[in-house]
Amino acid sequence: MTETVVVIYSGGMDSFTLLHLARARGYNVHALSFDYGQRHVRELECARTVCDELSIPHKVIDIRALAEVMAGSALTGNLAVPEGHYEEESMKATVVPNRNMILLSLATGYAVTVGAAAVWYGAHGGDHAIYPDCRPEFVQKMDAVCRVANYDPVGIEAPFMGADKGAILAEGLKLGLDYSKTWTCYNGREKACGRCGSCVERLEAFAVNGLSDPLPYEVAR
Amino acid sequence: MTETVVVIYSGGMDSFTLLHLARARGYNVHALSFDYGQRHVRELECARTVCDELSIPHKVIDIRALAEVMAGSALTGNLAVPEGHYEEESMKATVVPNRNMILLSLATGYAVTVGAAAVWYGAHGGDHAIYPDCRPEFVQKMDAVCRVANYDPVGIEAPFMGADKGAILAEGLKLGLDYSKTWTCYNGREKACGRCGSCVERLEAFAVNGLSDPLPYEVAR
Repeated sequence: MTETVVVIYSGGMDSFTLLHLARARGYNVHALSFDYGQRHVRELECARTVCDELSIPHKVIDIRALAEVMAGSALTGNLAVPEGHYEEESMKATVVPNRNMILLSLATGYAVTVGAAAVWYGAHGGDHAIYPDCRPEFVQKMDAVCRVANYDPVGIEAPFMGADKGAILAEGLKLGLDYSKTWTCYNGREKACGRCGSCVERLEAFAVNGLSDPLPYEVAR
Repeated sequence: MTETVVVIYSGGMDSFTLLHLARARGYNVHALSFDYGQRHVRELECARTVCDELSIPHKVIDIRALAEVMAGSALTGNLAVPEGHYEEESMKATVVPNRNMILLSLATGYAVTVGAAAVWYGAHGGDHAIYPDCRPEFVQKMDAVCRVANYDPVGIEAPFMGADKGAILAEGLKLGLDYSKTWTCYNGREKACGRCGSCVERLEAFAVNGLSDPLPYEVAR
């Protein structure tokens, strides 16, 4: 029987690549997105469209009521979006308390419900320095507890842990993926802003692969 | 400085005892309850009243939108409430996938927000056989991951892990607690039903302590 995995899929480029990697490895994939009151819904719309095209079951869990627990995040509040390169201090503004453990706990519950053996998420090397809950030690300990928390063990896997965004993109390009189907920018306007930390990293990933991003940008590149 | 702990407080007798134990040990206590669409609100009302009386900060997190993840629970759905003694098969109906990890993840996020060093919850010996996420191994591994998931480590503690409900009640009686301020019954009628698994265990706890429960019951005892 084909093994089932739940892929946490935001609609951004990393989890888009992860989703396709799981399919390429032969898993039966269930996609899971979280609506946590993002400033815009463009990422979620990308996720929905891609899952429809691939005929992948796609669940969106509404966790907006949890916003009070996640207080202080620029991704959900009215704080300014930090611009420029990802750096420890400015990025702390986007850290929500215990975010990944909350999302992985919910995903593990969903995995039990659909009979999946593992949850995949897109934590990667580029996030290590910034987010404690993107580090290998966190993934390892989260995997350990998820294996004993229910009657059926669920593993936690972060296949991109050793990669940076450039390497993730390279992996996706090998799979022939079309990144115009992803959205990364923190702002939800018609074109990507090209200035927020998320855009800057995305553009760097394309640059190191010697390519142009197929998305339209507000700024000349 | 007095150390702060977050106590997960449902309004039932175990967590009521836990709340008072944390106070008795000199901690600065924040109480946290979850509204997960229980069939009735009597437990939550008890929690609110007790926290008001003690002037303890009390947060209720609304997780009703997560009901879809927690599918299959008799505590939230329209399934019959299992009656009689807690036994493996009948009680599996009240197991929600990954329930305690989800609640502890949220509580850990809340602990970070209020600057608490630990989350206390009322898992106890009587639940071991039934719920994987009430076993010592789960608590230990959950503690391990919560200590590395955020910039500030948060510990997970289950002080009643070695106790059964009778021993927990004995602890509370030593503290002089009034158990008429708690609600345990799965049903939310004016009097406790005396027949659901939760009532049966509560009545046994009073019996082993040689006392009568101060709550009114529908059935003669």
